[in-house]
Amino acid sequence: MKLFEPFTIKGMTLPNRVIVPAMVTRLSGEDGHVNRDVRERYLRFAAGEPGLIVVEAMSVHGGRSGPLLKISGDEFIPGQAEMVRAIHQTSPSRVAAQIIHFLKISRSGWRQTVADLSADDIRTIARQYAESAGRVRRAGYDAVELHMAHAYTLSSLLSLRNRRPDLYGRSLENRMRGPGEVISAVRSEVGEDFPVGIRFNGEECIKDGYTLVDSSRIALRMAEMGADWISISAGGKFEDAIHRKGQPLYPYTGYSGDRCMPSVNYPDGANLYMSSAIKSFLAAHGHGTPVVATGKIRTPDLAESILQRGEADLIGMARAMLADPDWPRKVRDGREDRLVRCVYGNVCKALDENFRKVRCVLWPKGALQAPLSCDDAPPRWVYDDPNLTAVVVEGRVQLKWNHAEDDVAVYGYEIHRSADGEPFDHLTSVKGVFYVDDDVVAGVPYRYQVMAYDTAGNHTRPSNTASVRLT
Amino acid sequence: MKLFEPFTIKGMTLPNRVIVPAMVTRLSGEDGHVNRDVRERYLRFAAGEPGLIVVEAMSVHGGRSGPLLKISGDEFIPGQAEMVRAIHQTSPSRVAAQIIHFLKISRSGWRQTVADLSADDIRTIARQYAESAGRVRRAGYDAVELHMAHAYTLSSLLSLRNRRPDLYGRSLENRMRGPGEVISAVRSEVGEDFPVGIRFNGEECIKDGYTLVDSSRIALRMAEMGADWISISAGGKFEDAIHRKGQPLYPYTGYSGDRCMPSVNYPDGANLYMSSAIKSFLAAHGHGTPVVATGKIRTPDLAESILQRGEADLIGMARAMLADPDWPRKVRDGREDRLVRCVYGNVCKALDENFRKVRCVLWPKGALQAPLSCDDAPPRWVYDDPNLTAVVVEGRVQLKWNHAEDDVAVYGYEIHRSADGEPFDHLTSVKGVFYVDDDVVAGVPYRYQVMAYDTAGNHTRPSNTASVRLT
Repeated sequence: MKLFEPFTIKGMTLPNRVIVPAMVTRLSGEDGHVNRDVRERYLRFAAGEPGLIVVEAMSVHGGRSGPLLKISGDEFIPGQAEMVRAIHQTSPSRVAAQIIHFLKISRSGWRQTVADLSADDIRTIARQYAESAGRVRRAGYDAVELHMAHAYTLSSLLSLRNRRPDLYGRSLENRMRGPGEVISAVRSEVGEDFPVGIRFNGEECIKDGYTLVDSSRIALRMAEMGADWISISAGGKFEDAIHRKGQPLYPYTGYSGDRCMPSVNYPDGANLYMSSAIKSFLAAHGHGTPVVATGKIRTPDLAESILQRGEADLIGMARAMLADPDWPRKVRDGREDRLVRCVYGNVCKALDENFRKVRCVLWPKGALQAPLSCDDAPPRWVYDDPNLTAVVVEGRVQLKWNHAEDDVAVYGYEIHRSADGEPFDHLTSVKGVFYVDDDVVAGVPYRYQVMAYDTAGNHTRPSNTASVRLT
Repeated sequence: MKLFEPFTIKGMTLPNRVIVPAMVTRLSGEDGHVNRDVRERYLRFAAGEPGLIVVEAMSVHGGRSGPLLKISGDEFIPGQAEMVRAIHQTSPSRVAAQIIHFLKISRSGWRQTVADLSADDIRTIARQYAESAGRVRRAGYDAVELHMAHAYTLSSLLSLRNRRPDLYGRSLENRMRGPGEVISAVRSEVGEDFPVGIRFNGEECIKDGYTLVDSSRIALRMAEMGADWISISAGGKFEDAIHRKGQPLYPYTGYSGDRCMPSVNYPDGANLYMSSAIKSFLAAHGHGTPVVATGKIRTPDLAESILQRGEADLIGMARAMLADPDWPRKVRDGREDRLVRCVYGNVCKALDENFRKVRCVLWPKGALQAPLSCDDAPPRWVYDDPNLTAVVVEGRVQLKWNHAEDDVAVYGYEIHRSADGEPFDHLTSVKGVFYVDDDVVAGVPYRYQVMAYDTAGNHTRPSNTASVRLT
């Protein structure tokens, strides 16, 4: 598979094309230092041997920001360096740090906007990005990624909603000016030989926001300025965030948040049209800058086909890697049957929105990290009888089945479904032995199978097939 | 061009494949009757000879609703019949009526939702749709279109946000139940031989809304139930509407409203991926039901290519037809050079949002209809000197030029732009002799030309070319 061929970015060779994009963990303390939980989270990813791990956004400007990492001073370097060293000692994965500047928000719902910044403030932000990128390099990271996506300062400068009347707003050139100054300053600081990636939005997904019309041009500018990769995200904006009384605004609570992390209601690869359009636009202008595609890339087949078609160079998988950090290793070793599959139910997203530590709903209760297991014995159906039944109740399908047992622990049950004679596909996973399927229509024959799996991803043999048809 | 080949839907032969989708006009009185302004609006469309005109949504249930048409009783038939007769007497265009049910809204921002309806209420709505469809047929219309899009009752039943616990909500089958009952009732009423089209959303474009995952299945159900065409819209929902104090909620004011009527900030054909995915899905399930594509289909070339690729069967153009109702006739006669081009600035949308009569910003001041003109003499540049200049000011491009003159009246100035050596394309049109282009980036050579045009669409010769490059 092309997915497991090495990929070299300016001297940094990734062992494969799977990327863990930056994901907030809320595991650090308010002090912004790397602590044990943060370290373990990234070491757990490293154990799965993805090509590149992008460590969650760390702030370039310090200030109060809750449990988020900081890189705003040299005092943060030792903790970061220790984590990077530990990853490098145990894994072939490369490690980048994502760096971010954000503006002030308050519990009243008020927020500072880029309209409030002076031109001097913008120059200060560029200097802070540069100094922080320097610290990232000194901490031993292989690369740095500049956060220009979602609701944050540089994204807000790029936004079509940026109507500043001066040289930093309104026209597309002016909207790119601030982020361009950041790129230049960072490059001066880290040197020509250090990989500098950028993550930004292919679409803002808000009223009066920009679309591919602008983002293609923005990506081209980034490529011209020497970006070493361009990672495409979408949405995640303050403008449509839902304000909860007494809580600061959180930019993933509206529709643009849905578009940032497409749920089970979205087709696979829902945002791929953005990265592929941008990849084509860059190519048409003579730039081969690597492009990272993200957004519900659920299956190895889809990941591979994106690379085969040349629609992107690297595959970002956040939630799939949270559910099973061993995804790259398992797929590489031909053990796709052992994957613990993300259900795209966005419980991780909801935890983040509620300012709680981010974990996967599939993990064992209370666990702060995905389980590590050497268990090689798959679970068995109790009495050897899965006894799966499917019954129509009020226009929905109710599934029930028998418990399984495992020498260590049953982790959950995967439900696979075939609609209309098509191949079975992963529908969802649950911890109990009961599920109601709402995604059904009359006249279509549905077939269901259930498999129990343990923490290592060993699956039972499939259950009997339960068939049902609504009338 | 395939665009101008006839197309037959169940015995109704459209003279070509251009459709005027239903567009609210706010021209009727509060009584819901067709008045002179409404009649003139549709006769003006008819003069351009599109294949099918879908007359704006008329309510099946009566009740207070501001200046919107009604078809809730037999008393509305004569006015409708007179308009349809007049269209048929003067134009080969076919005419359909769109019929709608909507729930109550108040100026406080409160709105009734489908959760408030009893199962009896839903059956009543189906009966009202059926009776109204019968009236549509008796009024002499060639077809009826059932409104199941945007923020209204049937769309809200289809919505993924419909969590009714009974047989009309939650599962996809249950969400389709109410709209399905409407289709059955309408068919029983109008008979097998009368064309019944459906318009619904390919995507809701709201938080927790449905996407193509569901809309493909919904379209298939509509096809199975004998829909004679399926017209794909998007968004336009209450859920993200912006409430203005003292005004009832209006469902096109949020992001989903942008997606319903993609502006200048969107790529051409921004919603085509929806209609083409649905067309493919229907074909894969053995249904050739005609699909109507809509959403910023700006150029004859794009319209034709959609048909050539088989991505849709019919091309809906609302705003382009509002700007120039003669679009079909002009393009058919090889007079594309005489088009009055929509600028996709959505002033028409803003008028609707502000509960004002819907007109095009390009029309002469105060006019309630697009001008009709037999003027064959194009405007001339005053002193034969267009004298177009382009100057960079603070990261934007300022354009100025000389006035033109015309024997009747200069209607406006079209600005064409070439970026990066690409062909000239229509950038926008203005009434004055000044424009600031914000959509510019440094390093790209831009060339501009201006042409004045009169109300018939006759253009001056192009101005001199003004070139500029930002640094």
